[in-house]
Amino acid sequence: FNRSLSTESAQKTLSSKNNDQQHSNNEREFDSTGYAVTTKLCFALGITGSVIWLLNRKRNIVHAAQSESAGSLKKGLPTYSLEEVAKHNKKENRIWVTYKNGVYDITDYVSNHPGGSRILLAAGSSIEPYWEMYAAHKQEEIYEMLEELRIGNITEKSKDEQKDSSDPYANDPKRHVALKPSSSKPFNAEPPLSLLRHSYLTPNDLFFVRNHLPVPVIDPKKYQLTVTKVGSTKQVNLSLEDLKRKFNKKSVVSIVQCAGNRRSEMVTIKPVKGLNWGAAAISNASWAGACLDDVLKRTGIDIETVDAKHIIFDGADADPTGHNYGASIPIEMARLLKKDIILAYEMNGKDIPPDHGYPVRVIIPGVVGARQVKWLNKITLSDKESTCHWQQKDYKGFHSSIDWHNVDFTSVPPIYELPVQSVICEPEAGSVLEDDEEVTIKGYAWSGGGRGIVRVDLSADGGKTWHSAELSPTEQPLYKTYAWTFWEGTIPLPKDHKGEVEIVCKAADTAYNVQPDNVEGIWNLRGVLSNAWHRVPVKVPKS
Amino acid sequence: FNRSLSTESAQKTLSSKNNDQQHSNNEREFDSTGYAVTTKLCFALGITGSVIWLLNRKRNIVHAAQSESAGSLKKGLPTYSLEEVAKHNKKENRIWVTYKNGVYDITDYVSNHPGGSRILLAAGSSIEPYWEMYAAHKQEEIYEMLEELRIGNITEKSKDEQKDSSDPYANDPKRHVALKPSSSKPFNAEPPLSLLRHSYLTPNDLFFVRNHLPVPVIDPKKYQLTVTKVGSTKQVNLSLEDLKRKFNKKSVVSIVQCAGNRRSEMVTIKPVKGLNWGAAAISNASWAGACLDDVLKRTGIDIETVDAKHIIFDGADADPTGHNYGASIPIEMARLLKKDIILAYEMNGKDIPPDHGYPVRVIIPGVVGARQVKWLNKITLSDKESTCHWQQKDYKGFHSSIDWHNVDFTSVPPIYELPVQSVICEPEAGSVLEDDEEVTIKGYAWSGGGRGIVRVDLSADGGKTWHSAELSPTEQPLYKTYAWTFWEGTIPLPKDHKGEVEIVCKAADTAYNVQPDNVEGIWNLRGVLSNAWHRVPVKVPKS
Repeated sequence: FNRSLSTESAQKTLSSKNNDQQHSNNEREFDSTGYAVTTKLCFALGITGSVIWLLNRKRNIVHAAQSESAGSLKKGLPTYSLEEVAKHNKKENRIWVTYKNGVYDITDYVSNHPGGSRILLAAGSSIEPYWEMYAAHKQEEIYEMLEELRIGNITEKSKDEQKDSSDPYANDPKRHVALKPSSSKPFNAEPPLSLLRHSYLTPNDLFFVRNHLPVPVIDPKKYQLTVTKVGSTKQVNLSLEDLKRKFNKKSVVSIVQCAGNRRSEMVTIKPVKGLNWGAAAISNASWAGACLDDVLKRTGIDIETVDAKHIIFDGADADPTGHNYGASIPIEMARLLKKDIILAYEMNGKDIPPDHGYPVRVIIPGVVGARQVKWLNKITLSDKESTCHWQQKDYKGFHSSIDWHNVDFTSVPPIYELPVQSVICEPEAGSVLEDDEEVTIKGYAWSGGGRGIVRVDLSADGGKTWHSAELSPTEQPLYKTYAWTFWEGTIPLPKDHKGEVEIVCKAADTAYNVQPDNVEGIWNLRGVLSNAWHRVPVKVPKS
Repeated sequence: FNRSLSTESAQKTLSSKNNDQQHSNNEREFDSTGYAVTTKLCFALGITGSVIWLLNRKRNIVHAAQSESAGSLKKGLPTYSLEEVAKHNKKENRIWVTYKNGVYDITDYVSNHPGGSRILLAAGSSIEPYWEMYAAHKQEEIYEMLEELRIGNITEKSKDEQKDSSDPYANDPKRHVALKPSSSKPFNAEPPLSLLRHSYLTPNDLFFVRNHLPVPVIDPKKYQLTVTKVGSTKQVNLSLEDLKRKFNKKSVVSIVQCAGNRRSEMVTIKPVKGLNWGAAAISNASWAGACLDDVLKRTGIDIETVDAKHIIFDGADADPTGHNYGASIPIEMARLLKKDIILAYEMNGKDIPPDHGYPVRVIIPGVVGARQVKWLNKITLSDKESTCHWQQKDYKGFHSSIDWHNVDFTSVPPIYELPVQSVICEPEAGSVLEDDEEVTIKGYAWSGGGRGIVRVDLSADGGKTWHSAELSPTEQPLYKTYAWTFWEGTIPLPKDHKGEVEIVCKAADTAYNVQPDNVEGIWNLRGVLSNAWHRVPVKVPKS
């Protein structure tokens, strides 16, 4: 009874959520596997007591539409800055969270939360991304309960007032507290690895952030995208409204992965130059906007026949000397991807947030994040690559005997498509398993160039024995599988474990490319392209 | 003087050879590297004495056009069957070779051969493929010298007379003696690995052979290709002449690689089911014929819009119960490759030989050989894959804990695109190096799906230190790099070698996919997809 009720509510909640095509894929995944819905919901609500709690809450429902009013400004309540809220992140200071414009003190509620202490991930910050992830929260009775904990409103202006005008990063947006920064200026951060695996579409606030420069503040009314070709006198300027109104809106669900995802594993071999990313410098979203191909065609350029070798994308983010971030892709790649390259103004159905390129970024599915330029304001067809540092002197893959004394950045081509990747999200490294006989492992897998995942193999004995993971089905077309594939498997633990076990995953893509066994063989001075078998040490209780 | 003369002759010879686009790529490679031409020619002619020998021969030139008459039938000479010629493969029996219709006794010449004992590879068989490879032979004086050694004519009919009509393989063609069979019925064989690396386009006679069934004998005048769609009453029949005359001739230089290439390395871990291929079950040719897309269009089928999920190719080769070889590709792959899929009737400018699909085979660049059906006589658009054994129960990739007791062939998709591959062709395993300080390594690299090679790394100390190989330039377009990439590098030997060294190569493709470190992690019950780092043990002389 418990199980079937949970499943029904989950389905109802999920299906009312979003009519985005890919999102509905995700729902179908849940429907088809069945048990996944239950597992997920039971997790979100807490298996013990959750049904009783829900039934008790139902008795108190007196009025509807709390879902609409929850979080709106309430007269007569004190106002707090986001900085003030952020200080309330542990029990000693009281635990506050925000939802839209509302501030809530959840200290006394934490111990009753059916989802357990996971609620503390939002302490001092917004609960919204978690509610995106655990859609079961979106019920009238929960909104109502939330408002019962209301203590104030957010002062929207508090941040601006404290701006340090000498700091080029003063205009950077406020980030969610769950993002773990590997650098604050420029801001670079990843969400907790286990959270990633809880949502096929990563909520915008939890999407990993990789900035090279301060976030530019762009007035959407003044925004202009310039399209031009080297050697041509013609130049076309498009406003944001032009992009939205003059072109068909096309959407694609696509991963963005940093070339440096999993760099921290390379660092264990030998130091590298780069941000110390864990395995969550990757996220998945539904992007929507105008097709690059359509935009070029309307400006008189045909990708198939244009006399140019590269398409250069320039961003509005710049260093104090005025040098902006930019990148390029070969024209052959634009021909290959054609309608799939998007000048996106929406991310998961909302305006793209400042950290992800507001108002427009280019999405080049299957390709490293570094080429998917944010705050896009110029597209140039050229015979030459972008001359930007990040195109010329970074984001290239060398062998492990190349160091900063002998590196020649012209000797290899830039990274565009990325290699096959898979990562264990749960259990996390160092965690203590509940069982000493088997372990349930969950993770993501992905490959560049639209290559889907055909197999994920799991081992708990260092690769002596392998087990096949169950892959979530994808409805993305073959050779255009730009989103990740979630997978899960329960495998036996070795009997001679001595309290510690290393669990391992490796994937194969549609071209049967596989991950290399060890990080040693792929180590490189910039710590990019880290895709060895993912090895996670865990502790096993002694029976 | 010696060096420049050699280079000039080589260039002259090479440039007069062939106006095939890809072949001229190859020439440009030689021109641009310069030293490569010299090295190659000096090798073919033998550095010591070759120039003197050539100058001496020149004095004797009395008439021209030997190149046209050499090898033609000569009246008054005895006739020999190919079987008889084959017996003359060592000094004790006298060494015979053939050229076109001529039989030659080269026993007394062997010690004078400027190319050294390599000439013995042709003993008892045809020298033609070697002359394709070492084009410097194609000079009037050499043809003349050959005719001086003439002892007879080949009896064309000798083979047919001895046919055993109860043997389904009785009609199989005669193969070149240099091909090393891993199975004789059906015939499967690879050329010597070091020979492969001597010719960008593999000569037809030396191209590896992978047959699943007896070679069908097809009368080109009666040949028919049927094109149809499941559920449609329309069926189009095309003759060989139709294919040649009604459609533009399109050519593509493309690798064919067996899924089982390098299987012998997997066998060292644990037995597998399959032919014991070395690392030469791969070859490169220029294929020409009609585009699949053009043929389908003319028969009323548009790949982009057709209501079908697979394209099935059926061959004329069949087992005694009438079941033929067949395979299919997903319609998405046909859309992706579009104009690059060819119904080929030419291989390196000649009719496709019987072993390679005479008169027509399909060439699907970047894809495993198993789908590139030979003796093609039927194309069917369908919602289902080919039902053939080799599509359903073979050519799939499993992890190493799947064996014949628990294998479920429906659990993974068929192999289409192949993963990144690289192989050391020279020096060969077990050979003794000349030098104890450095070694020159040569090999090939390739990846599926048109992905070119961006890097080949070489090591002589088990992967502690890596060196970059020099890659031969390619003129194939980015993302349509269907031919292999030759590479070469001279790297230092470790000082503590103790007489033995393992040299290693590994490649990265344009998606920066890499080869796995060890064969253990990719072992599978069918021994396919063997692409670990290629490790070759060699002996080092003690100084």
